Amino acid sequence: MTTNDIADRPVGLDALLYPRSIAVIGASNDPTKMTGRAIRHLKSYNFDGRLVAINPTRPEVQGIPSYPTLDDVEGDIDLAMIMQAAAHVPDTLRACAKRGITAAIVAASGFAETGTEQGAALQLELDEALAETGIRILGPNCLGMISVRDRAVVTFTSALDDDVPLSLGPVALVSQSGAFGSFLFNAGLQEGLGWSHYFATGNETDLTVSELLLTLSAADEVTVLTAYMEGVNSGPGLIAAAQAASRADKPLVIVKSGRSAAGATAARSHTASLAGEDAVFDGVAAQHGILRVEGVEPLLDAAMTFSSGRRARGRRVTSLSVSGGSGVVWADAASARGLDVVTWNEEWSQQLTRVEPQLASFQNPIDLGANVYIKPHMLREALDTVLDHPETDLIAVLLGCADSIFDELIDIIEDAHNRTDRPIVVVWTGGNGQARKRLGKLGIPCFSDPLRAAVSLALLCDHSLRVDHGAPIRPEGIDHAAAARVISAARAAGRTQLTEHESTRLIAAYGVPTALAHLAATDDEAVEAARAIGRPVAIKVHSSRIGHKSDIGGVRLGLTEPEEIRATAQELLPLIHDLGESRPELLVQQMVHGDLELIIGTKQDPIFGPVVVVGFGGTLVEVLRESRVATAPVTHQHAVEMLTSLRGSDVFGEIRGRAAMDLDMIAEVITRVSWLAAEATGDLAELDVNPLMLHAEPMAVTAVDALAVLTVPRNEASTTLNSNGDTTDADHH
Amino acid sequence: MTTNDIADRPVGLDALLYPRSIAVIGASNDPTKMTGRAIRHLKSYNFDGRLVAINPTRPEVQGIPSYPTLDDVEGDIDLAMIMQAAAHVPDTLRACAKRGITAAIVAASGFAETGTEQGAALQLELDEALAETGIRILGPNCLGMISVRDRAVVTFTSALDDDVPLSLGPVALVSQSGAFGSFLFNAGLQEGLGWSHYFATGNETDLTVSELLLTLSAADEVTVLTAYMEGVNSGPGLIAAAQAASRADKPLVIVKSGRSAAGATAARSHTASLAGEDAVFDGVAAQHGILRVEGVEPLLDAAMTFSSGRRARGRRVTSLSVSGGSGVVWADAASARGLDVVTWNEEWSQQLTRVEPQLASFQNPIDLGANVYIKPHMLREALDTVLDHPETDLIAVLLGCADSIFDELIDIIEDAHNRTDRPIVVVWTGGNGQARKRLGKLGIPCFSDPLRAAVSLALLCDHSLRVDHGAPIRPEGIDHAAAARVISAARAAGRTQLTEHESTRLIAAYGVPTALAHLAATDDEAVEAARAIGRPVAIKVHSSRIGHKSDIGGVRLGLTEPEEIRATAQELLPLIHDLGESRPELLVQQMVHGDLELIIGTKQDPIFGPVVVVGFGGTLVEVLRESRVATAPVTHQHAVEMLTSLRGSDVFGEIRGRAAMDLDMIAEVITRVSWLAAEATGDLAELDVNPLMLHAEPMAVTAVDALAVLTVPRNEASTTLNSNGDTTDADHH
Repeated sequence: MTTNDIADRPVGLDALLYPRSIAVIGASNDPTKMTGRAIRHLKSYNFDGRLVAINPTRPEVQGIPSYPTLDDVEGDIDLAMIMQAAAHVPDTLRACAKRGITAAIVAASGFAETGTEQGAALQLELDEALAETGIRILGPNCLGMISVRDRAVVTFTSALDDDVPLSLGPVALVSQSGAFGSFLFNAGLQEGLGWSHYFATGNETDLTVSELLLTLSAADEVTVLTAYMEGVNSGPGLIAAAQAASRADKPLVIVKSGRSAAGATAARSHTASLAGEDAVFDGVAAQHGILRVEGVEPLLDAAMTFSSGRRARGRRVTSLSVSGGSGVVWADAASARGLDVVTWNEEWSQQLTRVEPQLASFQNPIDLGANVYIKPHMLREALDTVLDHPETDLIAVLLGCADSIFDELIDIIEDAHNRTDRPIVVVWTGGNGQARKRLGKLGIPCFSDPLRAAVSLALLCDHSLRVDHGAPIRPEGIDHAAAARVISAARAAGRTQLTEHESTRLIAAYGVPTALAHLAATDDEAVEAARAIGRPVAIKVHSSRIGHKSDIGGVRLGLTEPEEIRATAQELLPLIHDLGESRPELLVQQMVHGDLELIIGTKQDPIFGPVVVVGFGGTLVEVLRESRVATAPVTHQHAVEMLTSLRGSDVFGEIRGRAAMDLDMIAEVITRVSWLAAEATGDLAELDVNPLMLHAEPMAVTAVDALAVLTVPRNEASTTLNSNGDTTDADHH
Repeated sequence: MTTNDIADRPVGLDALLYPRSIAVIGASNDPTKMTGRAIRHLKSYNFDGRLVAINPTRPEVQGIPSYPTLDDVEGDIDLAMIMQAAAHVPDTLRACAKRGITAAIVAASGFAETGTEQGAALQLELDEALAETGIRILGPNCLGMISVRDRAVVTFTSALDDDVPLSLGPVALVSQSGAFGSFLFNAGLQEGLGWSHYFATGNETDLTVSELLLTLSAADEVTVLTAYMEGVNSGPGLIAAAQAASRADKPLVIVKSGRSAAGATAARSHTASLAGEDAVFDGVAAQHGILRVEGVEPLLDAAMTFSSGRRARGRRVTSLSVSGGSGVVWADAASARGLDVVTWNEEWSQQLTRVEPQLASFQNPIDLGANVYIKPHMLREALDTVLDHPETDLIAVLLGCADSIFDELIDIIEDAHNRTDRPIVVVWTGGNGQARKRLGKLGIPCFSDPLRAAVSLALLCDHSLRVDHGAPIRPEGIDHAAAARVISAARAAGRTQLTEHESTRLIAAYGVPTALAHLAATDDEAVEAARAIGRPVAIKVHSSRIGHKSDIGGVRLGLTEPEEIRATAQELLPLIHDLGESRPELLVQQMVHGDLELIIGTKQDPIFGPVVVVGFGGTLVEVLRESRVATAPVTHQHAVEMLTSLRGSDVFGEIRGRAAMDLDMIAEVITRVSWLAAEATGDLAELDVNPLMLHAEPMAVTAVDALAVLTVPRNEASTTLNSNGDTTDADHH
């Protein structure tokens, strides 16, 4: 060991991210065998560090010095790649720790994911070894990792058997599926994308996708984060990673599978991880700035676009095309994805005419016409004007074929690219691919289809223009003690279901406006309550023994006359008695009319903890099935975004002569309900406020009915949620 | 001229589709010049026929025999490629006709599309020459055409300057944009797609995209039709082409731009064609089996998928993957596009286990695991079982990278492909492209992203499973005379706007159920009308001088008491007098309650003629803005499909305890209104039935209000629609 070795040694997860010395334990001399592939790759990709093999039977493995045990190796080792069978892994990890190794990759399967007794026993041993040594591992059941800078291809994947050349870049990839991740990594290389790292996480016994993303978001050379996930093992972990990425202005692009029922089933059978409910994931992505995409090409396209490092200052795009047709197809695709194909005013169109009078169209989408292939300077002159145009945030250049004359055109684009910090993308359709390749090398995003360029530019805008609303601020006027009294009373009575009146008092304690209501135990009290509230009133059966009162005819609306009220009370009270309530009571409630109904709910998500859900109520819920989910608590601004992002949100605007709704007032209720969910997370299992009645003139938001369900106390619970919102299963892997 | 020449001569448009002899008129000796490119391409692609140049100054052009005039050429000429300036074209066409040439391509621009006087004059001369000679032309302002079989590359496009090799196949392409079409053609060749023809249609003075598609749908060697359109010059022409393609079971895949406002603007400024309204085009596509796609890759992907000639017998798909991750991403993408990731029952999963016990998952999506790369026979055994599985309609194989070992895997896929007539697609992600190339040559559709495979398979299903409902059948019980009387009376009174009562009588004559109503000129008559109809009633101001009665407070609902009715009549009658009606009348109408409101309308589309529109009414119209359009008349079955394809159509089902709606009853009304639009096409400009009230129990469909507007008589019209539903502009090009 030299002093030099010590000074160079990476600390913490750096041993994994930037290994300077690697030991492959259980390495085979046969480069075609799975156990031989890591050495093969490390050799063929010229790993830029020290490589040793641990193999008790040979002095050399594939020409690399080999030692019987780790103890026989002189000098430090940063990273161990353990290719042994599962049963050997715990002891090997102990041996690693003894040698001062802080990070390892465990390839073997055969642990918890098997579902067998033997697997569970080995998992326990593995967990113990990890706790004992503090060593950080990727895996088990893991394909390995690649650090491109160091040419550390520490993986036995067959996806690199064809020795595709590595290219270094700012994009990191973390994947729960080793094979699919390798495909993505390889496909990116084939497209000319520059990668910094690739990690396959396997079973995630220790390192998860989230922790790696969090670590990578602090790595200077990484500016784009991408991931493939099937299940989220820790909701808060993923949110922390997303927030760190957002603060570092590093886009986080994720393919999260299990969107469909079919996909989710496959995700469960494929790995030991649980697929989180899809709508919750979508909500978390929207709330915390994760860019969710659907497949291989959208992920790679986004990575390429973000690799330029450019940010959008707005969504206004101007395009220049060699073909009017390309321009129109582009304009359609861009508009459909929320980009603004900005109309050039007369002055600027005139300017274009003066500068280059031969264009085929002087309006955006600008059509250069086929002449540009003979007179490339036309592109230069038009681009100069576009660069000056103050209302252009984004620039798209649409060309095609004609690779034989591409050099001059690309020089012009490169020059323009160098003179602006605005994003420029190129669509080059057809041709032999040379032009796309050269543009890629210049760091200018290039696509073969206008559609894909539009999708990627829209993602770039989503990331660039995202406003971080900061941490949620607790609203004023929450009566925590009142809320606690409601819950304690129910707990004392051994109930988990609250009555409507209790549920309403619970949300009222958090400042949610509720309809006036009184309990009445007799017909006289009902008449008196109606008088106090103001008629007409609604009268409802009131009992914690029934969830849906209307199912038993227990809701009567619009009662005006005292005699009507008395008769109704006389009719309903025996019903409540029949439900088993020893002290039957009616709820006499103010009639609330509105223009629109919402449903606001909360639940304990097994992955992400307390979440708040908002959707349309009434008939609309049947037609639209539209809702938005967010982790609780939410910021006021995000609550507004939840409302405006609902499909059908035009209904909040001015329609049919009715005034527009005050979204802030509705968002205030969402925020307060979300704080209730967050602060009562150990007690409140579910809450439905349905309907939340919206009235436009004058604007009023009133909860007309509510139903809260408490968590089953922990000592009685077997499979249900605990107070952290995690299931027992979700804590594993 | 030899006898042989005569026997070989193509007839009709065959001279264009399969030219055996071509004269390039105005050909330059410089192969880099626009006027030299056609000869260059015909030479470099080895045109399989006789080629002559017409150039008065040279005996040879680029080594091809050249003649001063057409008359100097011996032997027949099938096709003339005219590269002369616009002014020469009319005379050249006459000279062509004199030589027996029946088809020509006119490259020159400078006609109607310029918008200049000179252009208009030349257009007139061109039109005259065409009428005089009967010659069929592509263009003017046209890039030319390619017949791959004959290696007839009759175009001056620069998109072929790099001499990309042609590959013959069953896909024809017709494009209104020459440049964009060339990009598509070239990109297809680069992807290994086999083309039969490519036509650029330019200004479409004679041959349109529609007529070429119609012609190609009868060509045996063409089994897949693709097109790029910016505007539809003849709606009926396009529908005829779509119907012919459908009858011939040839999928018709179209990129129609101008979807967005931005795109439509560009389409207008780019060509002289009018962009049809986008929703109408979507409706026509759905109704007549056109597969509309959005960009370059979706069109080429669909063409590749259909090139296999396979058809789907259902949407149930089973996939086999080397990576569980690919399988899950596939399952998500497939489900999202309406494919059914079919669950294998226990028996068949067991069967899979017996046949190949080493698979990573025995449930669909089936996961072969990475072992399949070492033991390719696993794919064979699993595929054999999939081929036997009776509930699998479609098969997807998901592989990646590993091109070095692809041969055996592809042999296995090819063998399976040969043993079934079911569609098989392959997704091969990453790798150097060799595997995709080989699969392409075998005619097995292959993609690099699961997403694109899912999109294309869904299109294949849409085409395969489309049911042709035949011609619409005129419903019974139409009282054409009664309808004519309503229209004649309004015409006689010099009115184009019908009153509500007249509009209601008009649709009632076509068998649409309407609310009971009587006109009342006095308060007594109003009371009597209410008695006859049955109370409560609505009373409405009745006048052709006002469209929106409620704007002047002219609608009173739910009137029950005779005195109330009398007072209302006394209040409203003076209002009508004030509108200028000499004989004020009220409409006393039955109150109709319902569960849901629809809007059914008709209009005269400038491109497609009479169309019927159906959408949600009431508040839903503000939230959803959902409607479906179809050309009138519609079949009953298509009317049902219009309803079920509405986003939010779940609302017709059983919800909140209300019975499901009878869609046939609603479709019956749509059909009848569509027949009215079709048969009154010369008279009826617009019709709104709003609301059409739907009542679930008992099911009832009732038109509660209607407003019809007649066409302005032709001699008074300047810019409005004429009786054929075409605008003056639309008759051009």
